[in-house]
Amino acid sequence: MSLTHIDATGAARMVDVSGKPATVRDATAACHVTMRPETLALVTSGTAKKGDVLATARIAGIMAAKRTSDLIPLCHPLAIAAVTIELTPDDALPGIRITATVRTTGPTGVEMEALTATSVAALTIYDMLKAADRAMRIEALRVIAKSGGKSGDFTQG
Amino acid sequence: MSLTHIDATGAARMVDVSGKPATVRDATAACHVTMRPETLALVTSGTAKKGDVLATARIAGIMAAKRTSDLIPLCHPLAIAAVTIELTPDDALPGIRITATVRTTGPTGVEMEALTATSVAALTIYDMLKAADRAMRIEALRVIAKSGGKSGDFTQG
Amino acid sequence: MSLTHIDATGAARMVDVSGKPATVRDATAACHVTMRPETLALVTSGTAKKGDVLATARIAGIMAAKRTSDLIPLCHPLAIAAVTIELTPDDALPGIRITATVRTTGPTGVEMEALTATSVAALTIYDMLKAADRAMRIEALRVIAKSGGKSGDFTQG
Amino acid sequence: MSLTHIDATGAARMVDVSGKPATVRDATAACHVTMRPETLALVTSGTAKKGDVLATARIAGIMAAKRTSDLIPLCHPLAIAAVTIELTPDDALPGIRITATVRTTGPTGVEMEALTATSVAALTIYDMLKAADRAMRIEALRVIAKSGGKSGDFTQG
Amino acid sequence: MSLTHIDATGAARMVDVSGKPATVRDATAACHVTMRPETLALVTSGTAKKGDVLATARIAGIMAAKRTSDLIPLCHPLAIAAVTIELTPDDALPGIRITATVRTTGPTGVEMEALTATSVAALTIYDMLKAADRAMRIEALRVIAKSGGKSGDFTQG
Amino acid sequence: MSLTHIDATGAARMVDVSGKPATVRDATAACHVTMRPETLALVTSGTAKKGDVLATARIAGIMAAKRTSDLIPLCHPLAIAAVTIELTPDDALPGIRITATVRTTGPTGVEMEALTATSVAALTIYDMLKAADRAMRIEALRVIAKSGGKSGDFTQG
Repeated sequence: MSLTHIDATGAARMVDVSGKPATVRDATAACHVTMRPETLALVTSGTAKKGDVLATARIAGIMAAKRTSDLIPLCHPLAIAAVTIELTPDDALPGIRITATVRTTGPTGVEMEALTATSVAALTIYDMLKAADRAMRIEALRVIAKSGGKSGDFTQG
Repeated sequence: MSLTHIDATGAARMVDVSGKPATVRDATAACHVTMRPETLALVTSGTAKKGDVLATARIAGIMAAKRTSDLIPLCHPLAIAAVTIELTPDDALPGIRITATVRTTGPTGVEMEALTATSVAALTIYDMLKAADRAMRIEALRVIAKSGGKSGDFTQG
Repeated sequence: MSLTHIDATGAARMVDVSGKPATVRDATAACHVTMRPETLALVTSGTAKKGDVLATARIAGIMAAKRTSDLIPLCHPLAIAAVTIELTPDDALPGIRITATVRTTGPTGVEMEALTATSVAALTIYDMLKAADRAMRIEALRVIAKSGGKSGDFTQG
Repeated sequence: MSLTHIDATGAARMVDVSGKPATVRDATAACHVTMRPETLALVTSGTAKKGDVLATARIAGIMAAKRTSDLIPLCHPLAIAAVTIELTPDDALPGIRITATVRTTGPTGVEMEALTATSVAALTIYDMLKAADRAMRIEALRVIAKSGGKSGDFTQG
Repeated sequence: MSLTHIDATGAARMVDVSGKPATVRDATAACHVTMRPETLALVTSGTAKKGDVLATARIAGIMAAKRTSDLIPLCHPLAIAAVTIELTPDDALPGIRITATVRTTGPTGVEMEALTATSVAALTIYDMLKAADRAMRIEALRVIAKSGGKSGDFTQG
Repeated sequence: MSLTHIDATGAARMVDVSGKPATVRDATAACHVTMRPETLALVTSGTAKKGDVLATARIAGIMAAKRTSDLIPLCHPLAIAAVTIELTPDDALPGIRITATVRTTGPTGVEMEALTATSVAALTIYDMLKAADRAMRIEALRVIAKSGGKSGDFTQG
């Protein structure tokens, strides 16, 4: 098997998608941020106004989805049609679970946009809590569902 | 304990660093990308020209370090003085281990820059290999060393 | 009435436009910058070369239209088809009147692009004249015309 | 009086600040968004979760402050030390009052950063409410306080 | 003959492409970087790992193609479908020859994207070698081939 | 001689400037755009309003200087203190001569900023005139003067 992003001489290239049809495509990525229980409590306890931690991460993730082709060298610019980010505190981790779902009508899939949105939402949570907990970790960033496109739909854990 | 990025009313803010001295500060972050052995072989086998996979990820990570304050809402813009990215294929994972070290002379630390560089380097590897392996995962993104600044030096695994 | 950019749980989201047809859509926004008469005279008197004040504002506005989805968190990236900016000195204000008209062929309207272009053109005028007049104000930024899209055409003062 | 951003031949230029000392400088800008009372009620009534409208505008404003020199052609890039945004619903307008305060330790003032942050926060509110009210207006964008720098401190209404 | 980017009053504008069909369009640009023979030897001699000089320039060029409408004021944003960059050391110059080919399916041509990619790849080579040779020059940047669009195909030296 | 941007293993890196003093540094770059005489006449003849061609290129060059570290992978972000662009029509070419001078107070030189500003100003002229002349070329882009920094001052043709 060869790599589509590397040509026969070994050089990186942005692959040609001009012959691919524009269809509706979705991708969902997920990860979680682990932290100490008392760090998680800073987000979940107290007044409703603490919602700004999660609101900030959500906005950062949505905006990052739109910057994906600026960050990932061989990604195509895409007309993103929808982005949603879910942030769920989970005492069992303890930490915060994140999923991002991105939709486009375009010639290529949006896994990278979903992964980038998830990743930047997680980094934003890290940034807002890092003064309280320097041992946080971002774990298990992966694509959990994809639909549309010729490679077929799939879901995975 | 309160969160520095959230004010007394619960609103997000960029904290004031104008009173902090500009000193040399370093941070190193790390993560790894896990993949099937035959996916890793696409990177490590063959001619030296396959180096473009790792070279592309390295450049993406360096450039992302400079974009950190554009991506993470409450991060301060910083004069980054140095960035290095290490990418090490590891048959034991199997996958690729990534570390990024960032240095600044400035009033705040560079953990977020190191984490962002590491994350974008990992996402770039994912992008270049995703046609071959849809089950890759990015794991264990965390800060492993920090020096400079009043919170003191530390290293962790 | 509910807000389309906020889901049932109160979280911000980028709304799904994948089902909307790509049609030609126009929007025009306007505002004015008020200033002291002698400040306005710095722009309008003297040689034709003073034209660079208005030329700079015009270019800034056009470029800002293209950055709208980078600035406004829930805006969709759009293929902008045309941008024109009009800058008219008005002794009666005294000040400068600004309108920006943006066109796209896409699934959503371009009010935000027209407003952003108008706003950044006004801010650029402010920047170039602020050493002479610290009491300038940007007033009455609003959409004055819109056409295309299912919500129907309209104009307003 | 001549314009510092225009040279003797009428050409735009970025003025030389290399001889100016880096000192702490603050600026506060303000504006308000007027809307129908029932539009304002969409933001202020209901559950605390509606907070995402104001949280989104706040984050957009903070991030825009950091993009100022990218948007305004002759602005110098600055190391922004702090940004705070206040968003206050006001039934008397009816609408939302916005102020942004920016601080730097640098050779030039931060009026443009404060104005840009205020402006983008207002545009974000407009974006989130525009489906409900197409007659909103952004009014009275101006600098209301400035300190630091050789031109002296001032406040104005 | 008049200039399409300047209206009847002499003002710059982004021309309206909403009436033009989206078709496949290609453009190839080229330039070369001249340098001393011993500078070129730093790139071409030694181990295969020196490939990072050319790999870095290639990635910079590909990423710059995607930034074209952000840099060139009156360029339309385009959905870039493919980018390839060729970098060929040439002892006869001595120096490095660069070509960039860009493809889109869109309403306007991609000459500017090809020129921008070529230019930034050349600047990146300059940056990486400038400590060794301050007399390098970038020469003969031009479009060498174009196809698609109503103005017809052409090639030139 | 070795390359500072490539480490001992051949990998690209952003070199450490944290130990270098912040001093005033200048660089001037130059190039020219050659075109047919009748193309040049479109810029130089007619009313003063045609000035928007040169004004647009000037603004694009100034803004590009500020984007240099975003475009050139291993460039350090710098606090640019001043930028001036000169655009001189020259019937003898025929074409337009461009120089850009950039100043910083920082730890590294600004050759890349001057070259990037010159290059983007030239590309903008190309863009505005390309409908009239597809055989334009950008020639002789090089640094013509540099001062400040330990490598010493120099000028060259």
